Amino acid sequence: MPRIEVVFSPALYSYRELEDSIVVIIDILRATSAICTAFEYGVKEFIPVATTDEAYEYKKKGYLVGAERNAIKLEWADFGNSPYDYMGEHVKDKTIVLTTTNGTQAIEVAKNASKVIIGSFLNISAICNWLEKQDKDLVLLCSGWKNRFNLEDTLFAGAVVTELTKRKVYEELTDSALSVGYLYEMAKEDPYKFLANSSHRRRMAKLNLKKDIRYCLQLDKTSIIPTLQGSTIVKWEEVLA
Amino acid sequence: MPRIEVVFSPALYSYRELEDSIVVIIDILRATSAICTAFEYGVKEFIPVATTDEAYEYKKKGYLVGAERNAIKLEWADFGNSPYDYMGEHVKDKTIVLTTTNGTQAIEVAKNASKVIIGSFLNISAICNWLEKQDKDLVLLCSGWKNRFNLEDTLFAGAVVTELTKRKVYEELTDSALSVGYLYEMAKEDPYKFLANSSHRRRMAKLNLKKDIRYCLQLDKTSIIPTLQGSTIVKWEEVLA
Repeated sequence: MPRIEVVFSPALYSYRELEDSIVVIIDILRATSAICTAFEYGVKEFIPVATTDEAYEYKKKGYLVGAERNAIKLEWADFGNSPYDYMGEHVKDKTIVLTTTNGTQAIEVAKNASKVIIGSFLNISAICNWLEKQDKDLVLLCSGWKNRFNLEDTLFAGAVVTELTKRKVYEELTDSALSVGYLYEMAKEDPYKFLANSSHRRRMAKLNLKKDIRYCLQLDKTSIIPTLQGSTIVKWEEVLA
Repeated sequence: MPRIEVVFSPALYSYRELEDSIVVIIDILRATSAICTAFEYGVKEFIPVATTDEAYEYKKKGYLVGAERNAIKLEWADFGNSPYDYMGEHVKDKTIVLTTTNGTQAIEVAKNASKVIIGSFLNISAICNWLEKQDKDLVLLCSGWKNRFNLEDTLFAGAVVTELTKRKVYEELTDSALSVGYLYEMAKEDPYKFLANSSHRRRMAKLNLKKDIRYCLQLDKTSIIPTLQGSTIVKWEEVLA
């Protein structure tokens, strides 16, 4: 019986219990939500990079670049990490280089896992349906905020644990998986309200990003599962059950 | 208004948000519970060390040594990390060197904080009463299990957050503090039952340590707050309210 573990920060990835596993990258507000959105709008691929310097090198070579730090788009970049930046014809068939405060750091630490996929509420059913068929250990990797625990990534991990436990895909849960399941239980009636006191929601409210938060908490806006292939994130579509 | 943060693993301590803060070291099963018990039985001091090699050097010099790895007492040691090892006249006025799988690692990373105290359910009221008077940022540092998240340390952190929030010592909570509060809310009626599926409880049940678990979940068996002073842990008594 495969097992499931939640890692609350990229800095803890090297201490995880499950070695040979599928890894789901989670950065709900907003990197992984933005990536899922861009694929729904036809982006060809993302090249995730950890540092803004690397991203800027790509920019000089003529690439389109998404670059965000501390919830704000860098001035020289084409996009930030708002999903709204990636909605429209302008991303269709494009390659976009991406660096964000937290999400691309999580991708960086997990890049050698046997399979790395991009998770958000926007593609949660596609992900659960696919995971159900894998019979393989699963690591849910929360990007957090500068390697600190955050509530919204945890909540998504809880939603996945709850759904897969219900489907009896996993039985013996690690402590981290148990805990996020409990938290999701308390939050599921109204996740937006549950996150009302979270630090990143407060941070984003100050920046007038409430609309982004509402959007990122929506379920199943796409059936695409973005997947890391070598050093790029590509599209990999699953039919929703 | 001071703030409160929970750090779920020694490996995350360097990424914490709050810099100049009181740190409470938490290793419920069983290092910090054992330390609190030993002080109640009159131990003079503990010298915490991170590695078994260091502990063995002390042993050769004639010191009493507590040494545990993977929940088991090392053969050459005088004590393991069971609180029962430290109950009785044999610890009175003694200096004991201590190394454990997780707890002494947490002490090691936090040793330069302005104040480091040892927390367990056994001295929880003494700790909350003292913290209430400090008006200072607070970091609750969970030892976890080999740098992974664990449920019992989290639960204790939740009990402290809940109590201090009720007393209005802290108001704006970090995401980590919010989450442990929610978990404690679900667990408080019967923490032993809540921990039934936790990995360390399963690990200890296999080793016939259920009696230890029951003991470590008891409230207020002592009013002593063990405190790091230089490189030793000494006694520091508070009157229970």
